[in-house]
This record gives sequence, C-alpha cells and structure tokens, in this order.
Amino acid sequence: MVTHGPHPFDPISPEEIRLAVKILEATFPGVSLRYKRIDVNEPIKKDVIAYIEAERLRRPLPSPPARLLYVLFHRLDTGAFYKAILNADKRSIVYAKELPKEVQGPIDIDEIAGIEEMCMKHPAVLAEIEKLQLPAGVTVCNDPWMYGTDNDTEDRRLFQCFMYMVEVDHPQNNHYSLPCKFSPVFDGLTHELVRMDYLPGGADFETSTTQPWKPVKTVQYAHDLLDEPVRSDLKPYIVQQPEGPSYSVDGNSVYWQKWRFRVGFNAREGLVIYNVTYDNRNLFYRLAVSEMTVPYGDPRAPYHRKQAFDVGDTGFGMNANQLALGCDCLGHIKYFDGYRNDCKGNPLQLKNVICMHEQDNGLQHKHTNYRSGAATVVRNRQLVLQMICTVANYEYIFNYIFDQAANVELEVRATGILSTVPFDNENGQTVPWGTNVGPGVMAPFHQHMFSLRVDPAIDGFKNTIYYEDSVPMPEDEKNPYLVGYVSEPTVMRTSGTANTSVDRHRVFKIRNDNVVNPITYKPVAYKLMAAPSQMLLVSKNAPGYRRAEFATKPIWVTKYQDDELYAAGEFTNQSRRAEGVETWVQRKDNTENEDVILWHTFGLTHNPRIEDFPVMPMERISVMLKPDGFFNKNPALDVPQSSQLFNKSSLHPEEAASCCAGSSSAGTKAKLYKRID
Amino acid sequence: MVTHGPHPFDPISPEEIRLAVKILEATFPGVSLRYKRIDVNEPIKKDVIAYIEAERLRRPLPSPPARLLYVLFHRLDTGAFYKAILNADKRSIVYAKELPKEVQGPIDIDEIAGIEEMCMKHPAVLAEIEKLQLPAGVTVCNDPWMYGTDNDTEDRRLFQCFMYMVEVDHPQNNHYSLPCKFSPVFDGLTHELVRMDYLPGGADFETSTTQPWKPVKTVQYAHDLLDEPVRSDLKPYIVQQPEGPSYSVDGNSVYWQKWRFRVGFNAREGLVIYNVTYDNRNLFYRLAVSEMTVPYGDPRAPYHRKQAFDVGDTGFGMNANQLALGCDCLGHIKYFDGYRNDCKGNPLQLKNVICMHEQDNGLQHKHTNYRSGAATVVRNRQLVLQMICTVANYEYIFNYIFDQAANVELEVRATGILSTVPFDNENGQTVPWGTNVGPGVMAPFHQHMFSLRVDPAIDGFKNTIYYEDSVPMPEDEKNPYLVGYVSEPTVMRTSGTANTSVDRHRVFKIRNDNVVNPITYKPVAYKLMAAPSQMLLVSKNAPGYRRAEFATKPIWVTKYQDDELYAAGEFTNQSRRAEGVETWVQRKDNTENEDVILWHTFGLTHNPRIEDFPVMPMERISVMLKPDGFFNKNPALDVPQSSQLFNKSSLHPEEAASCCAGSSSAGTKAKLYKRID
Repeated sequence: MVTHGPHPFDPISPEEIRLAVKILEATFPGVSLRYKRIDVNEPIKKDVIAYIEAERLRRPLPSPPARLLYVLFHRLDTGAFYKAILNADKRSIVYAKELPKEVQGPIDIDEIAGIEEMCMKHPAVLAEIEKLQLPAGVTVCNDPWMYGTDNDTEDRRLFQCFMYMVEVDHPQNNHYSLPCKFSPVFDGLTHELVRMDYLPGGADFETSTTQPWKPVKTVQYAHDLLDEPVRSDLKPYIVQQPEGPSYSVDGNSVYWQKWRFRVGFNAREGLVIYNVTYDNRNLFYRLAVSEMTVPYGDPRAPYHRKQAFDVGDTGFGMNANQLALGCDCLGHIKYFDGYRNDCKGNPLQLKNVICMHEQDNGLQHKHTNYRSGAATVVRNRQLVLQMICTVANYEYIFNYIFDQAANVELEVRATGILSTVPFDNENGQTVPWGTNVGPGVMAPFHQHMFSLRVDPAIDGFKNTIYYEDSVPMPEDEKNPYLVGYVSEPTVMRTSGTANTSVDRHRVFKIRNDNVVNPITYKPVAYKLMAAPSQMLLVSKNAPGYRRAEFATKPIWVTKYQDDELYAAGEFTNQSRRAEGVETWVQRKDNTENEDVILWHTFGLTHNPRIEDFPVMPMERISVMLKPDGFFNKNPALDVPQSSQLFNKSSLHPEEAASCCAGSSSAGTKAKLYKRID
Repeated sequence: MVTHGPHPFDPISPEEIRLAVKILEATFPGVSLRYKRIDVNEPIKKDVIAYIEAERLRRPLPSPPARLLYVLFHRLDTGAFYKAILNADKRSIVYAKELPKEVQGPIDIDEIAGIEEMCMKHPAVLAEIEKLQLPAGVTVCNDPWMYGTDNDTEDRRLFQCFMYMVEVDHPQNNHYSLPCKFSPVFDGLTHELVRMDYLPGGADFETSTTQPWKPVKTVQYAHDLLDEPVRSDLKPYIVQQPEGPSYSVDGNSVYWQKWRFRVGFNAREGLVIYNVTYDNRNLFYRLAVSEMTVPYGDPRAPYHRKQAFDVGDTGFGMNANQLALGCDCLGHIKYFDGYRNDCKGNPLQLKNVICMHEQDNGLQHKHTNYRSGAATVVRNRQLVLQMICTVANYEYIFNYIFDQAANVELEVRATGILSTVPFDNENGQTVPWGTNVGPGVMAPFHQHMFSLRVDPAIDGFKNTIYYEDSVPMPEDEKNPYLVGYVSEPTVMRTSGTANTSVDRHRVFKIRNDNVVNPITYKPVAYKLMAAPSQMLLVSKNAPGYRRAEFATKPIWVTKYQDDELYAAGEFTNQSRRAEGVETWVQRKDNTENEDVILWHTFGLTHNPRIEDFPVMPMERISVMLKPDGFFNKNPALDVPQSSQLFNKSSLHPEEAASCCAGSSSAGTKAKLYKRID
C-alpha cells in the first residue's frame, strides 16, 4: 500500500507541528501550555526495516511505521514539565507523562531570549553596570549559559548570565573581548535573581566588588573595525558545473554515484543520515552526532559548572545556521530546510539549514606503469552535506562526505569565538589553565567531546563489532627472521567499551557474519577510522564526569533498543548523572550477530592559541567509515579517468603548452623519464 | 654583490651536470666512470643564512655560499665506488673518496633497467618460465627489487627479481595480479645469477619446484580490460580563475598570501621547501621528507628482506611523475621541472615533476552574531605543491599545503598497486599476515614509515623544542571542584627522542626563547600537529630495526650539523645499520636556544584491504605546522569575506533564488531564525 504521507525518515512538517498542538490542546482543555519541543519521534525500527527493505528491493510497500511525534511542554498553571508521544496517523496521544521535578528540559530559543532581555533590565545588574563607570557609547550585554551541575540537590531551573562590555554599536562587535567580572544567576522559571557571582580577576581565586572599568581595546574581527586593510591579492576561484551536478534529489532522498540515502533533520541532532546504501547494498541504518560536551578546565567558581551539552542542552538543529549561496559552500548547491516550533507551538521554517554539493578532493588513485608510461589517474570527487551550528559564541561545522570508493567521512570543524573570562594580565600575568588572548581577557582550556552514533547495517541488520591489533609474531621458529607481524582480532560479544590504541594500531570493524567475501574468505566488513583522542580530564569524583561518562571511553557497543539515541541520555541540562551509554552497556546484552550500535567518542583538547582569537581558524577532526573486505576489489575502478578534456585546467602563462590524452580510457601516456640531449 | 648564478637553493641545472662530468673526467684522466648521481650538495648553512637574511631584509647581498655538487660514481676499471664533492664556482674538486666495499650506493634507473632486461634473457629464468607451460599470449616480466639485508657479511650488490605473468599485451596490464613462485637473485655488478629463490605457495614455509601454471584471471584496472562499464553519471567539475592565480613566481621563488618560499628539488628527496617566511617573518629554513621505509610482515624468506627505503635506496626525485595538465591537478597550474643525470653523465630533464595550484578547502572560519544575524565567513583558500612518485608498483603523493592562517601541512597519500605474493587460496586458505586480494594472489601486511625533517627558523635560527601534556590538576585546595587541568611543559634540552601520547594530548612545539609574544607573555612558537602512529613492528634483534631506527620513535631532536639530512643515513641500500638520527642524538648536544632539527616519524600500518587492489584508493596521512603564540591574533582576519559576488555558486534548480550580501565587509546578514506564520 503506497501512502502519500511523509516518509518514515522525513523531518517534521509545519502541519505536524500544528497537529501536535491541536492534539495537546484537546488533551489539556483549558490549560495554557508552553511548548519546548515539538519534533518527530524516531520511528520503531522493526517497523521501518520492512518498509525500507521493500523500497530497496523494489517490492510492494507495506504500511509505513506509525508516524510518532515527540513533545516537551510545561503546563503554565502548575509549572509541571511533561513529555508526550503522539500518533500523527491516528491524530491521537500515545501518552503524556509528568516528569520528575529534577528533570530539566533543554533550553529553547524563546526562553533564552527572555532571560537575556530580563537580565539587562534587572536592578541588581543595572547597579553593577553603574559601578563600571563606562565611557560614553560603551554598553553591556549578556550571554545566558546553561547552569551546569555541582551538587545533587538543585531542583531549580537556573541560568548563569555572563556579562560583556560592548565597545561599539556594530552588528559584529566582539563583546567576548571585554568580559565583565560579575555574573548574575537567575531562576529560569520565576526570573528571580538567585545570586550575583563575582569572577576572579587574576591568577588566583580572589574576587572583588565591581570597580570602575579601566578601558582596554576590543580585539575586533569585523573588517570595518580592523586597523589593517583587507587583503587585496586574493583572486576569484570559481567552480562551474556546466552540465549540472552528478547528484539527483527526490524529496529528502539523495542519489549520487551508487550511493543512496535520506537526509534527516531534527531540532536536537540537526543533520541525520538515514538508510545508506551503496550499489543497492545496505551499509548504515542511521548516522548522527548523538551528543557533545564541552567541559572547561579553569578550576575556579563559577567556571567549574561550565560544561555545555550542545546536543542535549540546546540542539544542533535549533542552532543550525541558515546558509547562504556562495558564502558557506562553493559550486552547485542544493539546500534542505527544517522546521521547529516556537514556545507557543507555531511552526518556524529553518531555511537552508543543510547544504549539499560536490567537491574535488585531489587524487583518489593513481598508478603509472613505468615500463609503458601509461597512467591511470582518478580524481576524488566527493559529495558533501554540511550543517553549521552557532552555539552562542562558538561554531561547529559538520560535514558528511561521501566518495566514489564507498567511504563516508564525518568531518567536524571547530570555529567561532572562544568562551573568554576576565583576566588582569597587564603585568605579565599568566595562568597554567588558559591563554591570554587580548588585553584583559583570557581563554581557559577546555575539551570538545563528540559522540558519533553509528547504527550499522552492513549487508543486513545483524552485525558484529570487533577490533584488530597489529602485533609482532612471537620470536620462535614460525618467525625465523623476526619480521613477522599479524592482526589479532577481539570480538565484542557483549555490550561494553574499548580503548583505542595507536601503539597497537587498533582498528575497529563492523562485520556481517552471515555474508562471506568470496575472495578474502572473511565476513564482509566496514572499518571505523577512529580519531584517537584524549578522554575527559575531569576527575571521576566530579559531577561533570558522571554527566558525561560517554566521554570517558572512545568506543561503546550496545544492542539496539528503540529510544536509545543520545550518548548522555535524554535530558542533559543540569543532569546529575547521565542515563546513556554507560547505563545501557551494563545490560551485558549479546552483541554478536545482533542489531548493534557503535558509539565513537572523539574530541579536541582545546588549549586555546592566541591565534584562535577573535575568531578561530578551524580545527579539523575527522572519522571515516571504509569498506574492508566488503567489495571484491577497489569500488572506484569504474570512475572515469581524470583528463584535461573533462577538467579544463589552465596552465600558468610562462609555461609551454602541454596536455594529457584526455579521452583515452587507458589513461595518460607520459613516460616517466624523458631524455634530453 | 649581486651575482647571476643559481640561487643557493636552486636545483641542479643541466650545465652543472655537464660541469661535474668535466671536472671528474679531468680528475680521473683515462678512467671510464659510471655516474650514479650528480646533484647539488646542500650549501653550508651558516653561509646561506647571511645571504637569505640580506634578501629578506632587503639589504645588499653578500657573496652567495659556495655552490657545491654531489657526485656518486663507479670507476669502471677497478669497480670502486666513489663520492665526490665539487665546487661549481671554482670549477674544482673538493674531494673524491673511495667508499668502503660494504657501502652500496642507491639504485639508479639505468642500472635497474639493465637488470630487468638481463633477467628476462637469463637461461635459468627462461628454464623456469618454460616449466610454467603458459598458454599462448601469456608472457612473463620482472620487477627488480633492492635486496635488503639479513646478515652482516654480504658485500655484493644484489637484486631480487620478482617475476609476474603478463596475461595480455596492454600498456596497463596488471602483472602484480599473477606473481610467479620463483625469484632469481642477481649480482648487480657482474650480472651473475646468485641464487634461484622459490616462494612459498601456501600458508606455510613450504616451497616447491616450478609447476605448470593453473590459469586464473588477472584482476585488471585498465578501463578497456574491465568487465563492467565505466560510470557515465559523473558530471564535469571545472575550476576557473578568470583573473589568474593569487600566486606569483620568480624562478623557484613563490609568493602567495603573505607566504614566501623557494621550491627545491633533488634526485633523492624530490620536493624540498626552503626559506619559508610569512609576512616577512622567518618560519622554516628547510622542510623535506628525509626518508621512508617499508618493511613487510610476511615472516617467510625471501620476504623478510623486503624493506624498501624509497628515499635512500632510489629517490623520490628520481621517481617523480612528469605531471599532466588537467589530470593530476585542477585549476590554474604552475609546473616546476627538475634535472637528473643518466649513467653516462648526460643531463635528463624531468618535466613538470612538481605542480602548484590553489584550491578551496571549505570554510576557514565563521561566526554568526546570533543577536544581529551578522556573519563573518572566510573560506580556506590553500596553495598546494604536489609531487607524485612511482616506486615500481606503488605511488606516493606528497602535498605541501599552505593556508591563509599561516598553517603548513604535509599531506601524504599512499596509492598505486600493492606488492603481492603468490598464494594458492582456492581452498579457502588465509594467512594472518596478509589479505587475499584475488585468485592466486595475496598482499602481505607492511608498514610505510616516513620521516619529516623540519629545520625550523621561528623568528630566527636559534629555537627550542618542547612538548606540553594536558594533565588534571591534583585534587587539592587549588582544584576544589575537581575540574581543573593544566598544560605541563617539558623542554628537550639535549638531543634525544620523545614519544607521542594521545592520552596526555601531547603537543610538540618549536619556540624562539629570544622573542616573547606581548600578549601571551610566552616565547613565540609553532606547534607540530603530529600524526601519532604505530612504530616499527620488526623485532629489535632484526637487521630491519637497526637499519631504520628512525622509525622506532616518533620524535627526534638533534642539533643542526651540515650533511645530516637523512634520517636513516646517507647510504641505505643493503645497509647493515643506519647512521642517521639514532647516531646523532647520542652526541647529547645542547638543543636549547640552538640551531635545532625536529624529525617526526609517522606512518601507516598497512594491512591491505581487498578494496586496495588492483589500484588502491588513497590512504591519507597528514602532519601540520601551526602558529601557537606566534601572532597576536588570527592571522587570517584580513582575508576577504566569502561572498556570492566573488564565488559565483549556482543554486540547484528546484530551489528559490537566495543570495548573501556579497560585498559587505561586515559579512552576511541572515538572521539565524525566521518566523513563519
């Protein structure tokens, strides 16, 4: 039965947001509700599989799985916080349950805008600003922050507002260059001032009452606020695709170079890649960045509570940039939109939150036969899906990159503005946990810890995760010349964790024990090119450790269960401990030849450079999924040769003309060595 | 005094090759000489510094350092092997010394071509081929290999010829798919057959006499030999630079986006980058891949001797591909040529061995002010210098990548064809030290170990190398909330080695103790983004370890001395032990605030995938040098904003038109969130 409703993996539509409001209004007649999140709820996997397998095998489609919606809201009469699951097909409620008092929902955009505005009008804040005795034209603004956690008793919903001086009224003034030394804490529901924190001014824990500001210059980044001129010697670089792109798109379904997948989007994770196949063979059911946490290393209050969870506390989808043609991507661009709700339940369009384009990444493979001079040269054309998230001061760029050799890469770029603190550094003062980045301003050390959730489907939905170490053979008669080394496999038979190991060249693989490669005689597999990273530096005895246990081990393996999507659990904001992977692995489920999930934690220990200020040149980190015994040979062998006829490069003028045999399928034929006399 | 001779860093010219021959003929009158290598000898550094500093500071130039030439040759009368240093300015010989009998020079191209040809005519080889009883049309070829080392007494110059069956007479037939089970060893000087080796056919050490070949199909890569069609759905992707490139070139001197450096080239290392400055501040005196070694993990004879040194045994410059427009690079390309000698001393031009072009690498930095919606977006334009080396079956692609944020990256791509061995795998047989990659053929595990030699000049020629670990603060009163972490520095005060550490996030830095950053209050520095890699797997007790001790530690620090350029020493071919970094560090020189060298060993443990055959999709490994406290802020701040006016992207047709404010220096102004009703 073919339906014309949304595909199971389609993002939420404005109609569905309105439907959710309608259902809940009918469920709570006469009660005013404040909507925090209205989104799709992940469909039940077993029901989806039948549907997507019928699609893949071009069989008649069964009924699609139930279309479920996920809603978080407050009752304005009692203040109670609810989670509801709705059935959009039946236009009915599955359940609505009141959550325990200590559970804090994520921060929403209307809420934070309200706090920010209220803070600026609060008499206690105005009194502190007064004491700064600011010069004419200099004003103050604030960034409300998630409060974090330092005890097990706090039930209030709190916000810590970090205050900054605004030197000039300009849309790109860098207020992060001038942090103030006072920081009010507010109750997010009552808007009451809970406490005025004073920030340390020097290299120790000392704080003081607010003193008149000793003016220093803002480190600006806007070009019209810079002292130096903009570079004038950068020449245009234009990508042209006169015959259009190599991809095609049908709704959120993408086809490119034997790849097929669906582009998902939700407020929490933002970009999600669903149902990835290559040459119509299953590879991955779902790929997403499931969580990230950013703990700070400055040991002083109130910075000890600075630990953002940018997926769970706010949401990459909520914070995704609306991208602009020619600015954020280059070439022939397809954009995807998303929707979110506001606090009243109105749908808001998020225009162009994902962009897709092809790029050239140099050579993919080359070989020159030195006898004949004949070369095979194939370039590495890639398809890139990009999402850029602004989390107040900071930016994350996520790129899923597909190539013609059946590799998928997740590349993360960290950029934006460092989270800064005030620091009286005029006397040559430094701290061992931060870097002076400008006059009066220091950027503390911190970590960015990401969790990539891989729901594999390597030639089917039952897989096994294992790792292989490269180890020298024992020095015995089977290794007479002492050069032998072998790979030593370890199968992760039950849910659990593993460490990466550079010294043992440990490689994690996902295999399908039911499908054997006819040449290697081993089960077909994909490998994870992990990003071995320093794990969480926070003490085991600190709340920040318990809240982010996913970031204490690089590899987690669990057996699939519906609703286990987020490495640090469903509710991270002011969480006392996670209820995520660290809980699920304890089931000790069988994970051999099962529906398994591979969670990879990787990250950056980011001890800021002064060069990262005022806007940071991107720091790149990447993980990749690569076939390893999945195909019978290089899957990119059938990619056309790189040729001048196709690529139309130009020669720097002082050179003589030269050209390769463009259309020859036997490739270029330049002898490696040419004799001159 | 301005001279019109070569610049001290210029590669050898054909005139200089001829001059060298002339000088040596005069030195050895009446003696026939066979020339192995005629190249520039690295100029004396102290003499160069005065010269390049005068260039940088635009002062009158002193006399250039002596132009020295380096020659390796054999006397044909005695067979003795000589090294000579010549003074090209004085047209005279500095010295010519006979080298000890056990020293083997590198393999040259005329030599290997001679061995290859002779092997195919040798009666013992023909007799083995006869026994194969090959079908009509199937022939045999051979790849002569460096012999490697398994004892301390071998004085002969030896070659091991690996034999392959050639299924079809085609310039791109993949003979590596059909390895034979016999392998003759020849004396390279006398051309005598030393031994006929028989290769194991199964998973154990057993060998047998040559049997009739049981035909199997070659795994081909040439498009006209493939069974499947070439992809037809890849659309052209054209890079246009209508205003030309952003670089300019003067001889071998390159200017691009505040960078200036010189492109060097020699037969041994190939591409060398000299005298790198940014905004006229010194950064690096010299960057080069100084050595690499490829030991194999198959424990069986004769594979235990398979350990190529692709720099010292042959030479990346010798094996550099002559690149073709539109095939190996994309965009606006400048090529550089090189020269080498043949065995008679004639100069040969190596056309287009280095290409240079700009590329777009996505975003370099972005920040959106969420209040105003104003975004700063700067793309990552890069300048790439590429060299591609074919070492018989295998290819290495080296890219030095410069960007606008003052980073330099060395990216290595491994591609080409795996070195294969015969393997009777029809019965489901496998080995733990290799991968079946086709019928009758197995690819043994191996490592590729590279040594990047960094001769730094961070704001001057006296530098200090140190490393910083990120470590939790002790759990005491200075860390009351248990979140604090600091960086712990260790200065490498004397020459020695260090390990990388992912768990401690160890970062290696090069600083100038004489120049303090006015904001961080720390010495200006660059950091090495190392590539932590598994080190050599060969046993400490094997010759392969002693020959490549550079590959047993990731970091080596030495005090600069002229002529200490190659990590495994000057002569690697059949070496019994290296005389390289492992020797030089033992001097325990002071390396604090001195002229120091940083050697970084990194590599790939390459346990082949079947997908790496017949031609391997590139495996990428990269190291980077990044400013860290060198500048006072992000050095790319003055790069023009990314705009549609400049970039001219196109929108996928189904989308509505949309565009960012191209020419605004305040960047794009799309609000992050837009309300729909």
